[in-house]
Amino acid sequence: MAQTWINGKMDAKLDPSDRAFAYGDGVFVTMAVDSQGQVRFLESYLQRLQESTARLGFCWRASADLLALIDSIAQAHPLHCLKLLVSRGVGGRGYAAPAAPTPNEVLSVSQLPAQYAAWRAHGVSLALSSVTLAAQPLLAGIKHCNRLEQVLIKSQSLPNGTDDWLVLDQQQQIIEASMANLVLLFSMAEKLIAVSPSHAQSGVSGVMRQQLILQLIELGIDVELRPVSLTELKRAKHLLLCNSLIGVVDVVCADGVHFERWNATASLQQTLVPQ
Amino acid sequence: MAQTWINGKMDAKLDPSDRAFAYGDGVFVTMAVDSQGQVRFLESYLQRLQESTARLGFCWRASADLLALIDSIAQAHPLHCLKLLVSRGVGGRGYAAPAAPTPNEVLSVSQLPAQYAAWRAHGVSLALSSVTLAAQPLLAGIKHCNRLEQVLIKSQSLPNGTDDWLVLDQQQQIIEASMANLVLLFSMAEKLIAVSPSHAQSGVSGVMRQQLILQLIELGIDVELRPVSLTELKRAKHLLLCNSLIGVVDVVCADGVHFERWNATASLQQTLVPQ
Repeated sequence: MAQTWINGKMDAKLDPSDRAFAYGDGVFVTMAVDSQGQVRFLESYLQRLQESTARLGFCWRASADLLALIDSIAQAHPLHCLKLLVSRGVGGRGYAAPAAPTPNEVLSVSQLPAQYAAWRAHGVSLALSSVTLAAQPLLAGIKHCNRLEQVLIKSQSLPNGTDDWLVLDQQQQIIEASMANLVLLFSMAEKLIAVSPSHAQSGVSGVMRQQLILQLIELGIDVELRPVSLTELKRAKHLLLCNSLIGVVDVVCADGVHFERWNATASLQQTLVPQ
Repeated sequence: MAQTWINGKMDAKLDPSDRAFAYGDGVFVTMAVDSQGQVRFLESYLQRLQESTARLGFCWRASADLLALIDSIAQAHPLHCLKLLVSRGVGGRGYAAPAAPTPNEVLSVSQLPAQYAAWRAHGVSLALSSVTLAAQPLLAGIKHCNRLEQVLIKSQSLPNGTDDWLVLDQQQQIIEASMANLVLLFSMAEKLIAVSPSHAQSGVSGVMRQQLILQLIELGIDVELRPVSLTELKRAKHLLLCNSLIGVVDVVCADGVHFERWNATASLQQTLVPQ
């Protein structure tokens, strides 16, 4: 089981009037600790949490105490996964939030998923999920704690030989995998163009996607964020999947469409994979 | 503050790996205790919870111990509000749920909202919320713990002289109030026809709505559940708002449209209001 700290206190228990428990009223990030005990891209994750709490309408920023705790946990847990959930804190009955909430910070550390090394080596296959994501621009893009759609997606049995789900919205636009972002690479006039699905209506815009986009731009590849229809998948030459723990991997097949492995993925992994 | 029981234990604290905290992976009901210490419509609420957990993909039914606890809390708290939240229980990191989860039951008791007696006496006014509900048929109708849309709705300031929000979906169909269901009454050929918005795409279908519908049918009024557009509001003669704690009240104004108070509301309140 994961080890947990609530507001800095190890193995503490939660007040059942916490609004993340009642309403999913919180946000979270999942971060990788490298072999040196450093959290990869920590500043970006904290920035993202701060922006996400602002989207939900409350103020939070990482305190010096929290930063010190993250550092000491990370030092003690190289090559682990560190999750930080920030809830709006306790509240009374009813949806209306306290005017001046006191956010609760819950840190938990757990092992990196065992299968990710094999996924990086061999690529992954995606099956098309029958669960499609609802459009809610007010919540799109942020990793809030209302994740029942993802729970439903993961509750279905993957077909043999597939590793994760390809997830669309209700307009049959490609949004993401069940717990990762996607980047399509199209070959145009002997150049590669990268396209990652827009998260204006649904989906979670991950920190690793930001990092991958920066790396692609470094490689001289133009990157577009825009709606991507399922039919466009057939025209893509390569498909990349990324999240904080896996870094980046090739998708070799999605919804029956096959993709060439990309010769740059291995070097991107050198930069993006926690090691 | 509310008094709380977790799996029968008073003032217990919650395991932070509870999936309702992480993902909003649970369902809840809010019930009224009458002056005799009886929970109104208890069987319907428990039935609804059981159906809702099944929709989310886990099994739960009320145990004899839970029923005894509900009874003893209700006896000790006449004219209070009793909330029962059933989460999927603890889980590991990741959206995939345990194959055989052990649901957690959290009961909390709190006071009835003070303003509801005045609302019943004078009727309520609704302002149109700018937050519109996303369409997700897989989750529509059930009172799950993914309630950030309602949190956003309640975070806005009501215009002076209004009491709650009229909430639409993204197709400008009327769905509900911020924490109550709606029934429109149309006058047709000297008869009243009742229409309550369909919750096939979004919204929460409350137990009190069921009870109100049964009462309307007893009065010889035909009831339809179907999509209702905002423009239809102008043709309605009466508008009713209902939830477990308020019973039923007249809406006197919604989005600037005025409604006659209904002469049958007072007698419906005799049946439906906790007293």
